[in-house]
Amino acid sequence: MDPDAVARAFVEHYYRTFDTNRAGLSTLYQDNSMLSFEGAKTQGVAAITAKLTSLPFQQCHHNISTIDCQPSGPTGSVLVFVSGSLQLAGEQHALKFSQVGGG
Amino acid sequence: MDPDAVARAFVEHYYRTFDTNRAGLSTLYQDNSMLSFEGAKTQGVAAITAKLTSLPFQQCHHNISTIDCQPSGPTGSVLVFVSGSLQLAGEQHALKFSQVGGG
Repeated sequence: MDPDAVARAFVEHYYRTFDTNRAGLSTLYQDNSMLSFEGAKTQGVAAITAKLTSLPFQQCHHNISTIDCQPSGPTGSVLVFVSGSLQLAGEQHALKFSQVGGG
Repeated sequence: MDPDAVARAFVEHYYRTFDTNRAGLSTLYQDNSMLSFEGAKTQGVAAITAKLTSLPFQQCHHNISTIDCQPSGPTGSVLVFVSGSLQLAGEQHALKFSQVGGG
C-alpha cells in the first residue's frame, strides 16, 4: 500500500472508533504519546483516553474533508493532517475541526 | 524561553514573512523539508519557495487564532499546529486555514 492509502485507512479507523467506541482509541496511543486538545496537553495512554472519553459530548459523527500525509523526521515516521466537520447529536450545525497526528 | 513562547514567536515570524516578503520564507525551510499544500506535495527549499510565491494571490494577511505545540519524535523536534483566517486583498470574506509544521 502506498503511504497515502495507509494514512487514509488509519484516519477512517480512528474516527470510526471515535464515533462508535471512544474508549477504544486507547489502542491507538502509546505511553509517550501527547495529545494537545484546544490548548490543553495530556500525555500517556491512560490520561489521553480519560481526556477523550470525558469530552462534553457523547454521540458524534466526524465527516472527513481532507487528509494530507507526508514523511516526518529521520525515523520513517509519517505526519497526517486531517480536516473535516464534527456533527454532535442534537445540534443543528456541525463544527469544523482539524487534527494532526504522527507515528 | 518556554517551548510555547518559542513556537508563538516562530509562528508570528512565519506569517509576518508570508504577508510581507513571501520569498523570504525560503530561509525557514531546509532541503529535506516537505510542503503539502491542499493535497499537493513539494520538497526542498527551491520548490517550496516557488510553490509559495506562485500561489494565486498576492497581498494577504494572516490572523492567527490558535497555536498548539508539543514535543515530537525522539530527536527533540517540536510540532506546531496553527489555525486562523487568511484575508486576501479585495475579498470581502476571510478564508479559514490551518497549518502544521515541525522542526
